[in-house]
Amino acid sequence: MERIGRGSFAFRQPPRLVSWAAAVGKKEGEGPLGNNFDLVFEDNLLGEDSWEKAESRLVTEAVNACLGKTSLTAEEVDVIFTGDLLNQCIASTFGLREAGVPHVGMYGACSTMASSLISAAVFTESGAACRAVAVTSSHFSSSERQFRNPLQYGGQRPPTAQWTVTGSGAVLLAAEGEQSGEESPALSIAAATVGTIEDLGVTDVNNMGAAMAPAAARTIIRHLSARGLTPSDFDLILTGDLGFVGSELLYELLSREDTDITDRHNDCGMMIFDREGQDVHAGGSGCGCSASVLCGDILPRMAEGRLSRLLFVATGALMSPTSAFQGESIPGVAHAVEIVRRVQRAE
Amino acid sequence: MERIGRGSFAFRQPPRLVSWAAAVGKKEGEGPLGNNFDLVFEDNLLGEDSWEKAESRLVTEAVNACLGKTSLTAEEVDVIFTGDLLNQCIASTFGLREAGVPHVGMYGACSTMASSLISAAVFTESGAACRAVAVTSSHFSSSERQFRNPLQYGGQRPPTAQWTVTGSGAVLLAAEGEQSGEESPALSIAAATVGTIEDLGVTDVNNMGAAMAPAAARTIIRHLSARGLTPSDFDLILTGDLGFVGSELLYELLSREDTDITDRHNDCGMMIFDREGQDVHAGGSGCGCSASVLCGDILPRMAEGRLSRLLFVATGALMSPTSAFQGESIPGVAHAVEIVRRVQRAE
Repeated sequence: MERIGRGSFAFRQPPRLVSWAAAVGKKEGEGPLGNNFDLVFEDNLLGEDSWEKAESRLVTEAVNACLGKTSLTAEEVDVIFTGDLLNQCIASTFGLREAGVPHVGMYGACSTMASSLISAAVFTESGAACRAVAVTSSHFSSSERQFRNPLQYGGQRPPTAQWTVTGSGAVLLAAEGEQSGEESPALSIAAATVGTIEDLGVTDVNNMGAAMAPAAARTIIRHLSARGLTPSDFDLILTGDLGFVGSELLYELLSREDTDITDRHNDCGMMIFDREGQDVHAGGSGCGCSASVLCGDILPRMAEGRLSRLLFVATGALMSPTSAFQGESIPGVAHAVEIVRRVQRAE
Repeated sequence: MERIGRGSFAFRQPPRLVSWAAAVGKKEGEGPLGNNFDLVFEDNLLGEDSWEKAESRLVTEAVNACLGKTSLTAEEVDVIFTGDLLNQCIASTFGLREAGVPHVGMYGACSTMASSLISAAVFTESGAACRAVAVTSSHFSSSERQFRNPLQYGGQRPPTAQWTVTGSGAVLLAAEGEQSGEESPALSIAAATVGTIEDLGVTDVNNMGAAMAPAAARTIIRHLSARGLTPSDFDLILTGDLGFVGSELLYELLSREDTDITDRHNDCGMMIFDREGQDVHAGGSGCGCSASVLCGDILPRMAEGRLSRLLFVATGALMSPTSAFQGESIPGVAHAVEIVRRVQRAE
C-alpha cells in the first residue's frame, strides 16, 4: 500500500473484485435498472414478519447470491464488513448471524458501502485476509418508521426528500494472487480516499442531498489531488445518493474549485428510480442505494468492458432523529473508491 | 501482515501505541480506578445541554488528551476509527465533527474499541496511514434513555443488569518506524482476531454478560489457536464488559474446551466500579467501559513494565430495542487485540 495523501492510498497489489450481487424490493425492480439486479423481491416483507427482518433477509440474499456466483462458500471468507441504517445496525447483524464469518460492523450512514469496501480492500491487500466481503442494506419501510413517521401516518414528503431504497449489495474481494476457483472479471480496487466530516449547517432532514454534497465535493477534490488525476481520467464519477438536489449543489461546489464533473457524473439516487414515473421526488437514498446500483448495474457494465475507470463516492448524512430534535445540523461524509478494469495478463 | 487463521493475523511490523487517554464521568472517577483516568468530569453534562452532547464532548476530550501527550496535532492523524452506542453513532460523529480527520465510523456495540483498534492497526501497518486513532465512548444517561427507560422513571434493575460507563478512551497508533516527536512507551499490537457472531439464544436484555460470553469464549479459543499460545503466555486476558455474571459463564464455556484463564483474567466491567459500594449490580458496560479501562489503567501499567503481554477482548451485544421487542435473541461478538510490551532496541 502506498499512502498518497492524508486518508488517501493506492494499492500496490490491487484487490480483485471476484463477484458481486444486488437484491432489491418491488419498487426498485420496477425502476430503470430493474432488469439488472440479481434478485427482485415482489413481497417487500420477503416472507418475514417485520420490515427489519425483511431487511436482514436482503443482506443474507445478497451475500448468498454474491458467493453463489463463485465456487466459494461462506467458510472461505475471512472477514465481512457490514453496515445499515437501523439503530445498532441490526439488519446486518441478524442477516449474517448464521453465516459464521468474522464480522466487522461499520456505520457511515449511506456512505457505508464505500467504507466497507475500503476496509475490505485494505484487509485483503495487507494480507490480513485472503477474501473479504463488503455488504450494506436499507429498507424503505424500516427506515421510514425509524427516521420519519409510521407508514400508516401518510405524511407529506417535500420535493427535496429522497426515497430510501429497499435493497442490499455485496462484493467479494480477494487478494490479487488469490484464486476464486472461477474465471473472474478483471476488476480491482486501485486506490481510495477516506472522507472527512463536513458540515455547512444544513438542518433540513428532508434535504439530505444538500447536507451530503459538501462532503462529496471535498472527497472528490482530495482523491483527484492525491492521485494526480482529473475528472477526464474517469469514465464515471458515481456519487452515492445525493439525488437531484444534492448533485446540482455538488456541481456548484466543485465549480468553485475549477473542477467540472458534469459530463461524467451520475448518482445512484438519480439512477435507481424513474423520477417522474415513480414519485420519488429528489431520488433514492439509503445504504442499499449505492450498494445495489454499484453491484447490480455498474460493476456488470465494467466487467463487460463498457467502463474502465470508476470513482465510486458513497455519501452519508451522519445525523439521527435525536440530533435533529436537539437542533444540530447534519454532518456529511463521503468516501471514494477507485475501481479499475484491468487488462488480464496472458497466462 | 501474516494471516494466521481465518480472521486472525499477526503484524510483521507491529504498529506502535504512541499515546492513549481516558476521559470519564463522576461515578467512574469515584470507582477503584478513579485516580488513573486522565480526565474526570464531575458534571456528567460536561457543561452541555443534553446527555448526547455530553457524550460527544467526552470523545473530543479523550482524543485531545491523547494527542496532547505528544507533539502531534489532529492534522497529523491520517484516519480515525470511532464508535459508540447511540443510534447512528452520533456521539462520535458530533464529537469529531470539527477535527477534520478522515473518519471511519464503526459499530460493534461494546466490542467497538477492539474493532477500531484492529482497523487502525491494519491501516497503519499496511501503509495506508502513518498514524491512526481509535476512540469509542458511552454515557450512562444517553444509553439509559435510548435503550431502557427515561432516567426519571426510576426503573428497578435486576441483579444481572450492568451499568453503562460514562467514558471515552482513545489510542494513537503509528507505523513502526514512524516517529511521534516524543519519547514513547514500547507498546505495540502484535496480532488480532476478528470475532464471529455467536448467539446461544439469550433473550434477557438485562443479562448482556450472558449473551456476550459465548462470543468471548470463541474468540479467545480462536486467537490462542491461531497464535499457538496458551493462556499462560499472557499476563492478562482482559474482557470488555462481561461483568460478574458473564465472566463466570466465560470460565464455564472455556473449561469445556479445556482452557483455564481464571488466574489471569479480568474484566473491564468488573474493574471500573466497586460492585458493592457503587450499587452497579453485575458491573460496568458500554463502548466507553473497555476503552477507558484500557486507556486509563491497563496501558499505563504496561508502559510501566508491570504487564508484558495483554489479550484485550472487547465484547459486544448486537441487539437493539427493536430486535428485542420483536422477540429476537441477543447475538454477541468479541474481537481480540494482542498488545505487547517490546524491548526497545538500542539506537
